[in-house]
Amino acid sequence: LDEREAKQIVREVIGVKDTLDDCAVVSWNGDVLVATTDMLHETTDFPKGITDWQIGWMSAAVTLSDIAAMGASPVILLLAIGLDRGSRLRPVLEGAKACCSANGAVLAGGDLDSHNELTIVSSGIGRARKGMVVRRQGSRPGDRIGITGTLGRAQAALEGFDEYRQALFQPLPRVREGKALARAGVTSLMDISDGLVLSLYDLLDANDCGYSVKSSLLPRLGGVSSEKAREFSLYGGGDYELLFTCPPERLPIRGVEYWEIGEVTDDHVVLVDGEVAPHQGYLHRWNQ
Amino acid sequence: LDEREAKQIVREVIGVKDTLDDCAVVSWNGDVLVATTDMLHETTDFPKGITDWQIGWMSAAVTLSDIAAMGASPVILLLAIGLDRGSRLRPVLEGAKACCSANGAVLAGGDLDSHNELTIVSSGIGRARKGMVVRRQGSRPGDRIGITGTLGRAQAALEGFDEYRQALFQPLPRVREGKALARAGVTSLMDISDGLVLSLYDLLDANDCGYSVKSSLLPRLGGVSSEKAREFSLYGGGDYELLFTCPPERLPIRGVEYWEIGEVTDDHVVLVDGEVAPHQGYLHRWNQ
Repeated sequence: LDEREAKQIVREVIGVKDTLDDCAVVSWNGDVLVATTDMLHETTDFPKGITDWQIGWMSAAVTLSDIAAMGASPVILLLAIGLDRGSRLRPVLEGAKACCSANGAVLAGGDLDSHNELTIVSSGIGRARKGMVVRRQGSRPGDRIGITGTLGRAQAALEGFDEYRQALFQPLPRVREGKALARAGVTSLMDISDGLVLSLYDLLDANDCGYSVKSSLLPRLGGVSSEKAREFSLYGGGDYELLFTCPPERLPIRGVEYWEIGEVTDDHVVLVDGEVAPHQGYLHRWNQ
Repeated sequence: LDEREAKQIVREVIGVKDTLDDCAVVSWNGDVLVATTDMLHETTDFPKGITDWQIGWMSAAVTLSDIAAMGASPVILLLAIGLDRGSRLRPVLEGAKACCSANGAVLAGGDLDSHNELTIVSSGIGRARKGMVVRRQGSRPGDRIGITGTLGRAQAALEGFDEYRQALFQPLPRVREGKALARAGVTSLMDISDGLVLSLYDLLDANDCGYSVKSSLLPRLGGVSSEKAREFSLYGGGDYELLFTCPPERLPIRGVEYWEIGEVTDDHVVLVDGEVAPHQGYLHRWNQ
């Protein structure tokens, strides 16, 4: 079962509409509820050297990032923890709680189980005013493509550039930025969990238009050769910056630091520096 | 780390109030949202002989049961699936979807990961009118204790009584009953996932009063010796019936099949047939 077949099965059973976005979307008494769940586990998701507190933080961050990616405000987070060693419980919970508190969410409960491999599923609920949720679908040719920060830092840390360990171990969900982008009227929005190029392919999947970016417009990853910087920025996972498209007449967007990196095109294709980009990234984030 | 220490840590970090109930509770535009998450995995939760479709059903059912246990209506369910074999994806999703559809919920998305052990976390959101959510806290001395069905069937199936396999493999969340009990004004409510006696201890933990039940008042589990029937009914897990307390003047409750099995007492203790019950059940449901 490859990624594509799995996606096909999910779409056949659950439906396409509900599975395109970072969150499920439900109307709720005149405003909108968004909900998402993310599984992380030791062997595939927690990099070497990360502390248990940071594991808790990261588990909350990936879910809050999905809520940010809808332009919504996080409300509560639940954790299901499959624990391999009891001593990890407190730091994991405290790290998750710190990340929730930093982003306006409440860690409101969960489930505890024993497991032979530390496995954490965080589920989050967010809220937005009606009409303010931004989905992946909605880009239009001529829109500019933007990102909220320097990409490739998490991948650089994995490849031994220790100055980027904080970015890898303790990603900052772009909650404030997501809401500001929604208010500014961006036309599509998602977070970049598995690399920029894969995220552009996800947008491609949800839209009829195409995406063309220039690597020279990406914020430059310092301390790394230009070749590696380009590779990490385009294909590295684990950064959790936001990717959006926006009509030029709505730019600049105030109150958000962002970089314009390209343009939405008529052709249904993902181009990097004018060439069709390989559909690759660090799937399942990374394997060590 | 034993169960008690784990609970203590969770309460210290998250707070007592949010961790007493089957669901987290959030006010939401004048009504109430409840949310819950449950982790199940192969070695501890899925009994021998269960199909993948039933695994999906069960994963949804345990979460919908928690929503039922608040007197709320399920709205959406998300699944995070750590998959050991690709062929299991479709039947797991279809089983979960069937259980959602049968209970008025929508299977609205989730997360897919690979894992060396099939691990499923279902997270559910429910809705209730303000003032209609029933918590574990609220029993008063003199209230009657009630349950919604025959207990011990899942445990009997585990011990080889094959006529009860359906109850074990495909538990029915008591969503309709939970709402009817809430409307009838029951004073406390929870589901019985790990056995009646352990659930009574959970109520004890949330209240100042005590609980006294008579085993002769339990619906009789057929085809099993009376000694085993008593043991399975009191200590067996996996049934997902509802347990509630209700002032006698609000009884009988129309439209719900239930059995009165005892009474709420002044003494802060759990009594079965007049004796203090051992604090035991099938923790983590069962280990095979």
